[in-house]
Amino acid sequence: MTAASSCISITLTQMTKLYGGIVVGDASAIVVGCAPLESAKSGQITFVTHSKYLSYVGLTHATAVLISQSDLDKLRLQYKITIDSPDRAFIVTQNPYVYFARVAQQFSEAAALPLPVRGIHPSAVVDPAAKIGSNSIIGPHVTIETGAVVGESVRIDAYTFIGHDSVIGNNSHLYPNVTVYHGCQLGERVIVHSGVVIGADGFGFAPNFVKKGDEQTGEWVKIPQVGIVRISSDVEIGANTTIDRGTMTDTVIEQGVKIDNLVQIGHNCQIGAYTVVAGCTGIAGSTTIGQHCMIGGAVGIADHLTLADHIIVTAKSGVSKSLIKPGVYTSAWPAILHRDWNKSVALLRNISKLSARIKRVEAALAAGYALLANASK
Amino acid sequence: MTAASSCISITLTQMTKLYGGIVVGDASAIVVGCAPLESAKSGQITFVTHSKYLSYVGLTHATAVLISQSDLDKLRLQYKITIDSPDRAFIVTQNPYVYFARVAQQFSEAAALPLPVRGIHPSAVVDPAAKIGSNSIIGPHVTIETGAVVGESVRIDAYTFIGHDSVIGNNSHLYPNVTVYHGCQLGERVIVHSGVVIGADGFGFAPNFVKKGDEQTGEWVKIPQVGIVRISSDVEIGANTTIDRGTMTDTVIEQGVKIDNLVQIGHNCQIGAYTVVAGCTGIAGSTTIGQHCMIGGAVGIADHLTLADHIIVTAKSGVSKSLIKPGVYTSAWPAILHRDWNKSVALLRNISKLSARIKRVEAALAAGYALLANASK
Amino acid sequence: MTAASSCISITLTQMTKLYGGIVVGDASAIVVGCAPLESAKSGQITFVTHSKYLSYVGLTHATAVLISQSDLDKLRLQYKITIDSPDRAFIVTQNPYVYFARVAQQFSEAAALPLPVRGIHPSAVVDPAAKIGSNSIIGPHVTIETGAVVGESVRIDAYTFIGHDSVIGNNSHLYPNVTVYHGCQLGERVIVHSGVVIGADGFGFAPNFVKKGDEQTGEWVKIPQVGIVRISSDVEIGANTTIDRGTMTDTVIEQGVKIDNLVQIGHNCQIGAYTVVAGCTGIAGSTTIGQHCMIGGAVGIADHLTLADHIIVTAKSGVSKSLIKPGVYTSAWPAILHRDWNKSVALLRNISKLSARIKRVEAALAAGYALLANASK
Repeated sequence: MTAASSCISITLTQMTKLYGGIVVGDASAIVVGCAPLESAKSGQITFVTHSKYLSYVGLTHATAVLISQSDLDKLRLQYKITIDSPDRAFIVTQNPYVYFARVAQQFSEAAALPLPVRGIHPSAVVDPAAKIGSNSIIGPHVTIETGAVVGESVRIDAYTFIGHDSVIGNNSHLYPNVTVYHGCQLGERVIVHSGVVIGADGFGFAPNFVKKGDEQTGEWVKIPQVGIVRISSDVEIGANTTIDRGTMTDTVIEQGVKIDNLVQIGHNCQIGAYTVVAGCTGIAGSTTIGQHCMIGGAVGIADHLTLADHIIVTAKSGVSKSLIKPGVYTSAWPAILHRDWNKSVALLRNISKLSARIKRVEAALAAGYALLANASK
Repeated sequence: MTAASSCISITLTQMTKLYGGIVVGDASAIVVGCAPLESAKSGQITFVTHSKYLSYVGLTHATAVLISQSDLDKLRLQYKITIDSPDRAFIVTQNPYVYFARVAQQFSEAAALPLPVRGIHPSAVVDPAAKIGSNSIIGPHVTIETGAVVGESVRIDAYTFIGHDSVIGNNSHLYPNVTVYHGCQLGERVIVHSGVVIGADGFGFAPNFVKKGDEQTGEWVKIPQVGIVRISSDVEIGANTTIDRGTMTDTVIEQGVKIDNLVQIGHNCQIGAYTVVAGCTGIAGSTTIGQHCMIGGAVGIADHLTLADHIIVTAKSGVSKSLIKPGVYTSAWPAILHRDWNKSVALLRNISKLSARIKRVEAALAAGYALLANASK
Repeated sequence: MTAASSCISITLTQMTKLYGGIVVGDASAIVVGCAPLESAKSGQITFVTHSKYLSYVGLTHATAVLISQSDLDKLRLQYKITIDSPDRAFIVTQNPYVYFARVAQQFSEAAALPLPVRGIHPSAVVDPAAKIGSNSIIGPHVTIETGAVVGESVRIDAYTFIGHDSVIGNNSHLYPNVTVYHGCQLGERVIVHSGVVIGADGFGFAPNFVKKGDEQTGEWVKIPQVGIVRISSDVEIGANTTIDRGTMTDTVIEQGVKIDNLVQIGHNCQIGAYTVVAGCTGIAGSTTIGQHCMIGGAVGIADHLTLADHIIVTAKSGVSKSLIKPGVYTSAWPAILHRDWNKSVALLRNISKLSARIKRVEAALAAGYALLANASK
């Protein structure tokens, strides 16, 4: 089923030595892989991140479960699930999900193929004036232009293009078919997935049209895009995402930002550290997004805006004004049955009429009271 | 005008031998190409799929028209169009559009260039431990990694990358610049257009942040994505679409699914057989879509949802809840003049006030009736 | 900071000789680069496009400012900014932004690296039956198929694929990783950014399903896409954009059109001259857009529509009907706080109830007046 099937086995004691946590149950139990709660089998380790899933713990066949102390207590007291059964152990940790991520990383690395041979594949075209760090892997058909600097232990896969004077930091991995235009800078441990384009020209043109009666002559004059893209360390960029170079300043992606697939980031944008951007989202030019923001999928953010730190924008929303106050912002309509939706659309158009009718009613009512007052004299 | 200009000629009798249907009119008429109703010329065959187009049949210069029996009857009775004219014949068939597709396929194949030579282009880099089936064409600069299995009569065009242990079924065609990550599986007769990325890492990170006053330290910890992408037979995938590999389970595209350009399909998704997904649509992770669904363009579907079979979601809609009942779902607003739209937006904000005003009116009215009752005692 | 730092210096007099305009102030002042108003340093030239920025002119360190006569007058009269200071000169021109674009182009060309050597890179695979014009640069790993015609002074970068019988006009530049399918035509001075796919099959399938009780059997039958893509001169296409080939007619992009990143243009579409399309926008099949239109980002336009000349569609809007009257069209909701938004959504659902309540009130009121009339008899 999976590309990588584990090929190591480790006891819970060994695991806590590596990643911390306290074993509750058989510390000598051996795990050989990991899986989600619902599908975990004997020999695998799983995790619980939320109390609502605790009921499933009794049903899992996992050999070990990563869990927080509070959830373990709930498990014992509320769910009456015996936690000292011989066939299921626990590792108690503050953050079971992160712990699981670390363990899963170990298993997947163990299962991965040995890396291709270090060095430059004979089919690659590397300019003599480019620098390639030690232990790096330059794959088939790679192109690296003059003045480019590739760090140590970098992996650049087939067809990836590194333009002149670009810099790729140590331990980064560029998957096949990535394009990095000239003069761009990537930090360390940056992961770039296939089809990503970094540093293409931003969308900037000066209108130079003259109107003669109904006719318009002229053209759009290109504004040269001479800024670059600066990407800090520990950034990951999803497949077919595009990040344009700056016009005269730079486009900046800060430390630890994670960007999903098919995202567009316009020229001169700045994305704050540890912000995440989900798939199909478009961020127009010269917009600044703060740190620790969460931008949902298929969101559109207009140009020249500022979003504060810790802003959350839910999926499919559109942001047309700067958002200064941290919080959750939305403008997405949930799909309903087509005929009901069409009614809503029609009604919205009619709100103004409703408002007018209420006005009339209010007036008539006032008049009625007046009459009534006289009548009852 | 077109890349492919027909280079065969065929009589209507021969055509019915190949594809069925009954000729009405001159069965010896020869057609050398096909075209839509409005632009068809003498020597071409065209089709009518809907009664509303019947009036055009009288005007077409086509030599032959594919039509259903019921439409042919309408043509004769309602439109009084003589169907036995010497210069226009008909082929009566249950599904003129499908019949047309088959005929058009024959003409375009006849017009296509001879295939490139079978075998592996000298510039391709194919690992000795990869298997390439007979009659397959491996184009220039292709890269195929160890353990990959390419079936028979497969066509893999320039710059397409097949990761280690991936499998490409018989008679599939991968256009230039496609990336298939390691361990993925494509069925038979699968068509993948340029720029498609299959099997990139899904978007999964565990938050590992600690708040110290206003400061937050920590990072997003990557969840390794060790599932694969499994694509069944007869699937077509449009240009620059991305389909992420599963986290611990797989991402699955079932039999006969057709996906348009620039579509994002998240990790662990499952798309049911014969479902179609139009361009620019994003489907978030772990969502399951049933069979025979039609997902419009620029639709957004949230994560961990289930859509039943035969669901239709219209273009530009957002789906945030599971859709169990088959039907047509919408949440898209049609663009209107900017100033009118802004009024609607403002009014929506005021509905709550309207509601309050009606409440007051209702109360006042009740009170009025009470007074009235007393007054009329 | 920027990839390109200027390496020429030019006096304002020389500049007006090249691009026109009148110098106000020290015509012998020398500029060595350009920058935006807020960040310009001594030795740089900048520009003002709108009166609202005039207050910044007093603060800029720029050596020269491009400005219109009317803004220069405002500057002197309203802002009392001395325009004959020795350390700041002006060039008066009708269109400062366009003037700036031309100057910036000169500086960026001067700063650019010398072009790679003319001719065909040894790693490129060019069919002997393809024609390559003089002074063209065919980069590493390029693939050009039989019958393709590449004009003069064309630049085709690494991994770019030119399908058989395609035509690339003079002075065009295709960046790395572009795919041009067979038979497509690009005009002169066309710029195509990385990851673009031109001429992939449009999304066309004929439903061929038979219902047997609850079961449906059959398949989607592919409609061969034998049209091409015709792109006129002076078009620029942003990274990872896709333009599908026509079905039986062609997909047409007219003169001077500018298309941003991640845009999808469906088969048989026609985009009128000088229209601009911003990023993440999708235009469905067979839709015709007029000249000088401005389509915002993340817009969705349905199939088989017609948009007149000079139509503006604002970002994130959806167009589901043809737009005949020139004007600005919108259907985008601005994101607000999540809880407020949810109230609006709920209220919209309740408009029908509001309307019913008003009806009741109106009736009761009428009845009340009747009673009142009797009572007061």
